[in-house]
Amino acid sequence: MPFINSKVNVALSEEEKEILKDKLGQAISLIPGKSESWLMVGFEDNYSLYFKGKNNTKIAFIEVKIFGRASDRDLDHLTAEISRIFKEVLGIAQDKIYIKYEEVEHWGWNGANF
Amino acid sequence: MPFINSKVNVALSEEEKEILKDKLGQAISLIPGKSESWLMVGFEDNYSLYFKGKNNTKIAFIEVKIFGRASDRDLDHLTAEISRIFKEVLGIAQDKIYIKYEEVEHWGWNGANF
Amino acid sequence: MPFINSKVNVALSEEEKEILKDKLGQAISLIPGKSESWLMVGFEDNYSLYFKGKNNTKIAFIEVKIFGRASDRDLDHLTAEISRIFKEVLGIAQDKIYIKYEEVEHWGWNGANF
Repeated sequence: MPFINSKVNVALSEEEKEILKDKLGQAISLIPGKSESWLMVGFEDNYSLYFKGKNNTKIAFIEVKIFGRASDRDLDHLTAEISRIFKEVLGIAQDKIYIKYEEVEHWGWNGANF
Repeated sequence: MPFINSKVNVALSEEEKEILKDKLGQAISLIPGKSESWLMVGFEDNYSLYFKGKNNTKIAFIEVKIFGRASDRDLDHLTAEISRIFKEVLGIAQDKIYIKYEEVEHWGWNGANF
Repeated sequence: MPFINSKVNVALSEEEKEILKDKLGQAISLIPGKSESWLMVGFEDNYSLYFKGKNNTKIAFIEVKIFGRASDRDLDHLTAEISRIFKEVLGIAQDKIYIKYEEVEHWGWNGANF
């Protein structure tokens, strides 16, 4: 039950979205028990973002929401991999990418909470 | 002080938004002490969403943010009702709907925190 | 490592965004250890929002996400200042503004978590 949402201040083609969601679907399995078979992915492109007061470069704000908790070590690995993906696919410098994690206690699917 | 935000990968008409916000305004009172008189509702339609690697079906990601905490039982009821609403109004299959809850400690309104 | 995201149901000009991000960049230093040099700011304008069942007035939903924790007192000051800014720049009544805080445990930047 993870959800990865990406706000980026560049345009995304359908092909780029496909590539990103495939790579994120692989990356999420760095967290034990998580896999693409439960992953939801969202994209917001052309988003209005400023970092350190400026918007003249490529920027990304990525939110990873997972049901339950994960270890520091696994989240470190996931940050490294997600940063690598956005650098590789969209050319966003890794020091212009924030990745924020939320460990969620109550999460509903198919009419009931897990 | 609740906020319910819905990301859906379908278009929403003004009429559908009105119906959804009315029904969500009733549903929120399943949580003791919450009612439409403090509810804010947001909609993002035509959102780029993938679930289990696919985007060829209707999908919804709904976030419910409440000030303070709620019981497991009340949140179960709310998940059932919100899922029912999105199925009924938009025809989204309940197994394509995630509902994520956030219990919030610091929440400001009218220039001060509750 | 803060992120301030604003959803407003009015249109924002580039000039208004510049003014808002400058003022938010000053406001964030009300939290000890935070400053514009680590702040990311996002804007979503023309957002579909209802408050208390109505959408016939200006409304804002603002999310402040910070790495680590902050005192009640500092967050009170920040709420007062952010509310003042959105009233001054966009003419949104302070009783139509929600500000929600999230204190974050895991936050990645530049390929690693803090």
